[in-house]
Amino acid sequence: MNNLVSENVAIVIIGDEILSGRTRDTNFNFISKNLLKYGILVSECRIISDSKNEIISTVNELRKKYKYVITTGGIGPTHDDITSESMADAFGVEIESNQDAFNILSDYYKNIGANFNEARQRMAKIPLGAKLIKNQISAAPGFKIENVFVLAGVPKIMKSMLNEVIQYMDQKEKAINIKLKVMAPEGEIANILEKIIEKHSDVKIGSYPFFESDKIFGVNLELNSYNDNSIKNALKFLKIHLSEESINYK
Amino acid sequence: MNNLVSENVAIVIIGDEILSGRTRDTNFNFISKNLLKYGILVSECRIISDSKNEIISTVNELRKKYKYVITTGGIGPTHDDITSESMADAFGVEIESNQDAFNILSDYYKNIGANFNEARQRMAKIPLGAKLIKNQISAAPGFKIENVFVLAGVPKIMKSMLNEVIQYMDQKEKAINIKLKVMAPEGEIANILEKIIEKHSDVKIGSYPFFESDKIFGVNLELNSYNDNSIKNALKFLKIHLSEESINYK
Repeated sequence: MNNLVSENVAIVIIGDEILSGRTRDTNFNFISKNLLKYGILVSECRIISDSKNEIISTVNELRKKYKYVITTGGIGPTHDDITSESMADAFGVEIESNQDAFNILSDYYKNIGANFNEARQRMAKIPLGAKLIKNQISAAPGFKIENVFVLAGVPKIMKSMLNEVIQYMDQKEKAINIKLKVMAPEGEIANILEKIIEKHSDVKIGSYPFFESDKIFGVNLELNSYNDNSIKNALKFLKIHLSEESINYK
Repeated sequence: MNNLVSENVAIVIIGDEILSGRTRDTNFNFISKNLLKYGILVSECRIISDSKNEIISTVNELRKKYKYVITTGGIGPTHDDITSESMADAFGVEIESNQDAFNILSDYYKNIGANFNEARQRMAKIPLGAKLIKNQISAAPGFKIENVFVLAGVPKIMKSMLNEVIQYMDQKEKAINIKLKVMAPEGEIANILEKIIEKHSDVKIGSYPFFESDKIFGVNLELNSYNDNSIKNALKFLKIHLSEESINYK
């Protein structure tokens, strides 16, 4: 989709439990779908381990390459939560106990009658100069440092933070999207698609085969464009060509 | 898990439909879990777009960094299937109509009574020097070129190819894995985990909070090690410390 919107956002999923397959990541798909609602396109996703070196090198590469970077995971209270200190290193800034974060956490644990111990106090440590991102579920905040948004890995918490993240981003006009279900295998319509694309360079067509009873049965096509006229013309010609070859669609 | 096994495999998921969130990827989790059964650890995953430049630069970076690279997606018959030609470019070799692939495809379409047209013949184009990987579902093969395995994106087809891929890889002894469900929030046991890890440097402990009725309720711990004695000792001390603080586990 590179010809439709400028490359915007990279997502970094941090966690050994995702890499090993133990936990199935749902954050990437949720973030990507929700950003697209605002016309913001995800250009790349990386899943990396809880390793300081990996986090630093990945973030330093991606924050230069893309307009925004969103990370999830590794901001809890235990030994394997090393995202905040890695971010401070990546940006070459100190990490400090943030007074606002400390107060939010202190109030939260007082309210639920739990001990605000040393491990929990670690969650108030935020890179110097970062802005907090609210956590409406369990208090421990995420943060924004320059163009990087650092969110929790627990999906419920990540979701509560994402709305605040979107407010920071430039929202774009969303591409027009038309779907068509074609009752023929990909190989039967590939030549038609080639023709349509040649004539409508500002329309992007995605082609996704689907199965029924163990056989490749047909193709879900998806047309995307910012140009209303182009996409209507492309669709018209596509339907004409399909009809000429007696291929059904709906 | 970097201290447990050498960094082995990177996975590259190729597809705009995954990046946009339209399709939820299931290949990464399936591959990762299945390789782990053979002691093969996935060190990184990237999800990238159907862009020739992105495919080439990603594959050229990762094939030097890791022992093996597995890609999924983009080897079908349509215009957006550009993985094979991108691989040829990445390795600086020609792409040719592979005679074995051509025969396999030709037989398959004859058998199902479909037209082996130009678009389908494109699926026989394989980088020079690559070895075919069988597709038991819909004939169009994947391939291995040096340390890179190029598989289909359709999960059913990818799965049928993965067994052949595993035969090429060095299988390792699998780490011993012990799970423990602790009925206390992460913040209450973080200091205990620190102590255990200090004393058992060859045991890796993952800590994964779980929710019940909207509250963080407890933690799933996962101990991993190649050393049977170490992991048993670590577990023993962990249980003693939990009991001392009257924290339940199962």
